Amino acid sequence: MSASTTSTEAHPAELLAIDAGQTGIKTRLRLADGTTHDDLFAGVLTDRPLLPQLAEVAESIVRTAGTAPATLTLGVSGLTDAQAEAEALLQRPDLAGILRVVATHDSVTSFLGVLGDRFGSVVAAGTGVVTLGVGPQHSVRVDGWGHIMGDAGSGYWIGRAALDAVMRAYDGRGPATALTDIVRERWPDLDLAYPQLQASHDRVRTVASFAAATAVLAADGDDVAGGICRDAARELALAATTSLRMAEAPGDAAVGAVGGVFGSELIRSEFTAAVNAERPDARFVPPMGSGLDGAVALAGLGAQHPLRERFADVRRA
Amino acid sequence: MSASTTSTEAHPAELLAIDAGQTGIKTRLRLADGTTHDDLFAGVLTDRPLLPQLAEVAESIVRTAGTAPATLTLGVSGLTDAQAEAEALLQRPDLAGILRVVATHDSVTSFLGVLGDRFGSVVAAGTGVVTLGVGPQHSVRVDGWGHIMGDAGSGYWIGRAALDAVMRAYDGRGPATALTDIVRERWPDLDLAYPQLQASHDRVRTVASFAAATAVLAADGDDVAGGICRDAARELALAATTSLRMAEAPGDAAVGAVGGVFGSELIRSEFTAAVNAERPDARFVPPMGSGLDGAVALAGLGAQHPLRERFADVRRA
Repeated sequence: MSASTTSTEAHPAELLAIDAGQTGIKTRLRLADGTTHDDLFAGVLTDRPLLPQLAEVAESIVRTAGTAPATLTLGVSGLTDAQAEAEALLQRPDLAGILRVVATHDSVTSFLGVLGDRFGSVVAAGTGVVTLGVGPQHSVRVDGWGHIMGDAGSGYWIGRAALDAVMRAYDGRGPATALTDIVRERWPDLDLAYPQLQASHDRVRTVASFAAATAVLAADGDDVAGGICRDAARELALAATTSLRMAEAPGDAAVGAVGGVFGSELIRSEFTAAVNAERPDARFVPPMGSGLDGAVALAGLGAQHPLRERFADVRRA
Repeated sequence: MSASTTSTEAHPAELLAIDAGQTGIKTRLRLADGTTHDDLFAGVLTDRPLLPQLAEVAESIVRTAGTAPATLTLGVSGLTDAQAEAEALLQRPDLAGILRVVATHDSVTSFLGVLGDRFGSVVAAGTGVVTLGVGPQHSVRVDGWGHIMGDAGSGYWIGRAALDAVMRAYDGRGPATALTDIVRERWPDLDLAYPQLQASHDRVRTVASFAAATAVLAADGDDVAGGICRDAARELALAATTSLRMAEAPGDAAVGAVGGVFGSELIRSEFTAAVNAERPDARFVPPMGSGLDGAVALAGLGAQHPLRERFADVRRA
């Protein structure tokens, strides 16, 4: 008798939830007896086809557990066609036991993890940033348009502004800043910083890596770094208030702010002040749970929930 | 008797000048009798090694002409180590007849083409932008730090700002703008614009391609497009005035503005006004010649010229 047969007979799997971000893919398998098994895989590569990456993770878990879950839920970074991905996952031979797939963008699972089924806005600001607003009737997405044309206030945005400020100080267009020492640690000859960065295969992450030091220098009183962090906070607040307005959320709606950028106390407090200037009654709430909790919640959300318009929910015929 | 022997005996080549830009590589071969032969090759790829690309062009011309020029001069986009490139070119077996190589960044040949040996500032603004200032004692470079951390006011900078403004109008953060129709011609579904742009192998050129339409809409009175163009003009003016100040150029120094961005009358006039606000006596001058003329001029520049510090000038031992 194989281990997998034992496992299936003992505890059939109810749900496999996947939170697929660029930094890591987190998974949770829930069995019929209520026990859960969490796992972590390497992050999703958003410039390659998503399906093989998601399928490989799901198949690996099903293989190990020896049981296919009735429901598979996914929140995926970079997902642009949830319907197509959900249907394609149901077609994978190794996932034949799955009866239902619910797929959505990771901004939705992030929202559900932070606010659950409450109305409000969640700003998730890491290397990129995406904001989701949910009101009684509908939900809206604000920004999350990537490092070239969007992601205002994100880690990339802050790092890019820091590099720009360093080069302005270097050629005489801008004031001196302690950011220069930070950037020189990476590129001692500033003349060569830009060709080396442009030739790098990891440009986005490299640029965003300067955000943390920028926040530290801002807290230490560097004017240039402080200006960048305050501008970032205002961009994040604009996204939050815009999402509340566009989603027609109630005046006392909840606001959640998650992600590495909010690790800066300066950015967090400027963000709160800027949101309150526009929305005095907004309630800032700590996250109820993680994006993985949000992926679990996907399975149980009512058919009338305003976020349902952002899901693909596919059942086997 | 071969054609090349005939050619060499009749008219030995004095000079081969190369202006190697990203759009095209322009060459001029000057023979002892004063006649010149111009040619055009595909543009230099700045994310690949430069030497093979430059050597191939020079070798092809030497082969066709049947005579190696005494002097080879080059202005090269993306050049970061002129000394190494110049020495390596002298080592190529097929360029054995060349006695001297002068190599520099294309911002230097652009300056020489526009202002010749006068003091002043040249702003060259196309997809990217680089500004050079020359005073009696020394020369300075301002910006030209590439599309990620620099190139303020360039075609890329304008196009990126236009895309950002379109997405802000789309998600409710910003005012409506006619730029939206332009961007929708390329990406009818704006939700998909950013993943498609990020996956493109021609991102920089694609972004910069929106600059021309932005200038047209600005001239037509679109407020958002107008704001972007005025901001760009101020960035370009800041680079010009900074370069004059850092190079300690005289008050009545010449200012040259070249490149596609200055094809916008709005940008050109805002640029002039902003430079004059800081430098009332600056003289705006039309270009004396092209970047290729500047590459030719490289060969004859005196040893005391302030731009000499930006050259590699290598002679065969």
